[in-house]
Amino acid sequence: MLKLACFGAGRIGQVHATNAAAHPDVDLVYLVDPVDTSTRNALATQTGARIVTPQEVFDDPQIDGLIIASSTDSHADLLLKAAQAGKAVFCEKPISLDFALTRRVVAAVEAANVPCMMGFQRRYDTSFRAVQKRIASGASGPLEQLTMSSRDPSPPPRSYVETSGGMFRDSTIHDVDMARFLLNEDIATVYAVGSCLISEDIGAAGDIDSLMVTLTTPSGRMAQITACRRGPMGYDQRLEALCAAEVLAVENQPQHQMTIARPEGKTTAAPENYFIERFRQAYRDEIHAFVDLIRDGTAPLAGIRDGYEAQRLVEAALVSCQTGAPVAFGADWQPAQEDAHGPA
Amino acid sequence: MLKLACFGAGRIGQVHATNAAAHPDVDLVYLVDPVDTSTRNALATQTGARIVTPQEVFDDPQIDGLIIASSTDSHADLLLKAAQAGKAVFCEKPISLDFALTRRVVAAVEAANVPCMMGFQRRYDTSFRAVQKRIASGASGPLEQLTMSSRDPSPPPRSYVETSGGMFRDSTIHDVDMARFLLNEDIATVYAVGSCLISEDIGAAGDIDSLMVTLTTPSGRMAQITACRRGPMGYDQRLEALCAAEVLAVENQPQHQMTIARPEGKTTAAPENYFIERFRQAYRDEIHAFVDLIRDGTAPLAGIRDGYEAQRLVEAALVSCQTGAPVAFGADWQPAQEDAHGPA
Amino acid sequence: MLKLACFGAGRIGQVHATNAAAHPDVDLVYLVDPVDTSTRNALATQTGARIVTPQEVFDDPQIDGLIIASSTDSHADLLLKAAQAGKAVFCEKPISLDFALTRRVVAAVEAANVPCMMGFQRRYDTSFRAVQKRIASGASGPLEQLTMSSRDPSPPPRSYVETSGGMFRDSTIHDVDMARFLLNEDIATVYAVGSCLISEDIGAAGDIDSLMVTLTTPSGRMAQITACRRGPMGYDQRLEALCAAEVLAVENQPQHQMTIARPEGKTTAAPENYFIERFRQAYRDEIHAFVDLIRDGTAPLAGIRDGYEAQRLVEAALVSCQTGAPVAFGADWQPAQEDAHGPA
Amino acid sequence: MLKLACFGAGRIGQVHATNAAAHPDVDLVYLVDPVDTSTRNALATQTGARIVTPQEVFDDPQIDGLIIASSTDSHADLLLKAAQAGKAVFCEKPISLDFALTRRVVAAVEAANVPCMMGFQRRYDTSFRAVQKRIASGASGPLEQLTMSSRDPSPPPRSYVETSGGMFRDSTIHDVDMARFLLNEDIATVYAVGSCLISEDIGAAGDIDSLMVTLTTPSGRMAQITACRRGPMGYDQRLEALCAAEVLAVENQPQHQMTIARPEGKTTAAPENYFIERFRQAYRDEIHAFVDLIRDGTAPLAGIRDGYEAQRLVEAALVSCQTGAPVAFGADWQPAQEDAHGPA
Repeated sequence: MLKLACFGAGRIGQVHATNAAAHPDVDLVYLVDPVDTSTRNALATQTGARIVTPQEVFDDPQIDGLIIASSTDSHADLLLKAAQAGKAVFCEKPISLDFALTRRVVAAVEAANVPCMMGFQRRYDTSFRAVQKRIASGASGPLEQLTMSSRDPSPPPRSYVETSGGMFRDSTIHDVDMARFLLNEDIATVYAVGSCLISEDIGAAGDIDSLMVTLTTPSGRMAQITACRRGPMGYDQRLEALCAAEVLAVENQPQHQMTIARPEGKTTAAPENYFIERFRQAYRDEIHAFVDLIRDGTAPLAGIRDGYEAQRLVEAALVSCQTGAPVAFGADWQPAQEDAHGPA
Repeated sequence: MLKLACFGAGRIGQVHATNAAAHPDVDLVYLVDPVDTSTRNALATQTGARIVTPQEVFDDPQIDGLIIASSTDSHADLLLKAAQAGKAVFCEKPISLDFALTRRVVAAVEAANVPCMMGFQRRYDTSFRAVQKRIASGASGPLEQLTMSSRDPSPPPRSYVETSGGMFRDSTIHDVDMARFLLNEDIATVYAVGSCLISEDIGAAGDIDSLMVTLTTPSGRMAQITACRRGPMGYDQRLEALCAAEVLAVENQPQHQMTIARPEGKTTAAPENYFIERFRQAYRDEIHAFVDLIRDGTAPLAGIRDGYEAQRLVEAALVSCQTGAPVAFGADWQPAQEDAHGPA
Repeated sequence: MLKLACFGAGRIGQVHATNAAAHPDVDLVYLVDPVDTSTRNALATQTGARIVTPQEVFDDPQIDGLIIASSTDSHADLLLKAAQAGKAVFCEKPISLDFALTRRVVAAVEAANVPCMMGFQRRYDTSFRAVQKRIASGASGPLEQLTMSSRDPSPPPRSYVETSGGMFRDSTIHDVDMARFLLNEDIATVYAVGSCLISEDIGAAGDIDSLMVTLTTPSGRMAQITACRRGPMGYDQRLEALCAAEVLAVENQPQHQMTIARPEGKTTAAPENYFIERFRQAYRDEIHAFVDLIRDGTAPLAGIRDGYEAQRLVEAALVSCQTGAPVAFGADWQPAQEDAHGPA
Repeated sequence: MLKLACFGAGRIGQVHATNAAAHPDVDLVYLVDPVDTSTRNALATQTGARIVTPQEVFDDPQIDGLIIASSTDSHADLLLKAAQAGKAVFCEKPISLDFALTRRVVAAVEAANVPCMMGFQRRYDTSFRAVQKRIASGASGPLEQLTMSSRDPSPPPRSYVETSGGMFRDSTIHDVDMARFLLNEDIATVYAVGSCLISEDIGAAGDIDSLMVTLTTPSGRMAQITACRRGPMGYDQRLEALCAAEVLAVENQPQHQMTIARPEGKTTAAPENYFIERFRQAYRDEIHAFVDLIRDGTAPLAGIRDGYEAQRLVEAALVSCQTGAPVAFGADWQPAQEDAHGPA
């Protein structure tokens, strides 16, 4: 039995802790969350984990791996400590909203050579992964053009926006990661436009709520992202991959299979409403992948370098959006120091 | 150029006359309709046909073929006259609501050996025909179970019902014909249930508005028909053919390709609203088939014998519905004389 | 915490035991299965249940409820013992393949007044249940015509068929139960046809593999069932409910959301492959309903009387199929003694 | 009866001439095509039009309107002559591949004030038009993000590419026109990327075969176009309009309604294969609109100014694609003289 500890008992922490506890080969020993809430305590009871301080986790040599599902501003520090302690780690994105700090964390994790997996759960979703596998199998021919739609059911509250790093860093990071996953090639140029069309609160927080991104690769392949903080049909996560021999698409997953046909037409159910529901299976598979990583060294679908590259890409998108010019995204491109942290 | 005459300038007569006039190899010479309406006269103008009496048509030796799209009670007489005159004929269903008369007409047409095609337009619809072709090709394996849905957008007026022969003879005849087309085997048993659920007017006219039919074949294959005089989603004509290797289906054809996604789900357009719109292509292809029949002797998809067998089947369904027992439908089965005409 | 025992560690026993163990308010104390298999023992370990004899379960006064997921021929005896012991019981269908025994069991369970729930899991499926709820809400208007499709991915082995009671009793029982659930009215007539079209093994076992059933109600409403032991597209469980104001349908649930578009068309994923996967959520909700029944007396969606009526209906269907005549299905209809047990 | 003349007896000329001849209020008097082909002559026979020289058309004072469906390089000259002759004109896009000449033609047509309609048929397609109407009705709320897919079934031959003006001017002009139609606002920036991924012939002709375009408006709304000269699923013309209250989409129109379900999934028919089939209804409605323009002065959905603006936009996209920078697209933006003609 692998012994794991989970940091964070919020929405995503609950998902990971529950999945870890349900894994037949995992003993979820510790739960870390400084805030004494009833949900935290219920989660501890349900999973059989003991609520401890971070220090107790790092002091226990029997702990095989850490799940970092705590607030974004704690990720970097926990990753650095995990690297120091030589613990395997599964960390939610992003590494840090401060890009310079992200760089330091990546260097430390890579130097320590600890097993590390980043929480880009979409890579583990059966449908998105099936697209990647099918392209990798050669059955589709080369991917030429990728089009992605990414919309939340409703805009987040202003308080969330203010600490989120902005829409690019908070949300679009998943989309550029998926683009990297499928294109499987370096990115050559990044162009982004954005505006605040739907939420005055978001505008007041200095952020945008609607954006489009265009990526190109050195070989001339292309990807487009359309994203909005509000989807009138609900949580809307789709893509379409034009390949030489066929077009692969990921459609939304309806909440159920009942349809209603009336004089005005036939209506299918709305999509699974948000990421917890939509990516239920993906989150479960992530924990399985983390176990496989620790136990067998099986490479995860997203490692620390993928977390870093996705952050570089959204920094470039942010720069493009702010300057109005595309960014030539070489392997060495870095955001200028003054652009690399704080709200978007 | 083939010289044709069209009987009937009503809804279906307009369709056939227009299609005939547009056929590059057809000269629509005559239009016959005793009622002097503006639509009749406009149709004559548009198609370039001359309005004449039936006698003038039969007296003209240059006429190659007749399209019988006049009222149901005129079909038998016109078919008999066509047989006598040796004219090729394309006749809308049914031959007659009086089954004994139907028998006599079939005998006369077959004895005269005139080219004859019955207006079961669904056989000419691209989608329904594609199912038949695919089964015939062997790609699907044997057809085992056939399920059909058949619903009108809204119930007909009482006056129509009273002269229609009833729902089986008027409407279900198309469904049993399609079952014959796809099963391509004799029918062994016919079982039908029916009731009046939606329209008091229909009930007052002594007819039903909702029915289900089950057919079996000697080899044990089966077909079910669900039919209603009212479809809440509009005109609803679908089927599903379970074959050994695959399931073929004909779905409804939406009126357009715009979809609307809202919080309550994604809505596609309602089906093409009624038979004139839904079977536009099929009616066009029927005229082409009639031309090919006259000119080249190409067998049509539905001949006089198909018209006869479909009528026999709906008579059997009517008997089953009235008696509550299945009908053993041998090759010699005939409705009893007293059941064979008049309102259902 | 409610204390439960589960009889049966086979396919469906594993589902129920796992769901019971995962329920926050349940302590799965015992697992009963006489056959010492590694899956049984692993299930005990995973759920924390102790493997015991039936007697130990009935001797333990602290046990609040029984889950009967053992082989069909054990259901009746366990139900009788549960009634005697005053235990709440959740039993997989059928009560017994011997109809006379079924009658006795129902009488005993009703006399003992123990909480009893039958395992018609489809009633708990979100989509099927949504149809029932919507009809019950009045939003759809009265249900007029119900059409159901029910196909397994592939035929069962001959050994299974021989002890299954035949296709009607083993499989169609779910469909007639759903028809009862949605029609919510007595059944007036039952007509069934069946044949052996796809499997020589099934024919050799004296059973059929393809069938169609027609049900009517006293008010003239109708239902049709099309069923086959083999679905070329996989596990195929759909229905369509024509109501006065709208048509409700339950479509299959695809295995994932990736589509592939090629020159020959656009392909969506095959349905969830079999009942364990397709009804995963329904099985989970059944255990929740069983807990609610024991704890709060909340009526389940299917009780012992529903189990009895569904069995009566499939016996009537079997009689109709064998005699070729519809069965007038009054409240007192019973199968003749000699028809009421043994293989179909 | 309006008297019309049609220039061009090629693919699109045949469509327009046939539709004009079938219009009840049109007399198609002349057909102009200098090349003596059997299709030209058959078209004349079928439509009853006389084959004449351009001069004969312009000399006939009774001609009410001209349909310009001849080769692209003849459009400008015919438009200028129509303006001079005071004839109403319906002209296929583009006005000219030489932007300076386009400017002169637009000035002349507007000065002459002749009724003029440009052939952007997609505006007349029921589905695309339904999106525009619904947005205009206010039911959808403001359009925020528009995403368009535009793919031909297969790449054109090199000879076509060499005289086409390139992919932007030849094909993307339809997409930017649709963007203008739906956004109904000025365009602020144009960004385009393109490459040659699928056809060496196209690359050898100096053109691209794959492109993406991003448009923004002054109010911050956005549109993206993904286009390719080859669609693995066939002719692929879709869009999605994210509005505040709902998402409108135009899906492809399948060739028929038969679906095939097999173990690997359910397949719907491929889209109507190319523009003649897909836009059959739109082309018919265009001729009706041209008649309404001549007879009643009803403004067409696309006039000469729309043709001009669509050309300006594709010139800007071409500049962006060549320079790698977005173009600030003010009302006065013009391509530099040296960019404004010749192959892309």
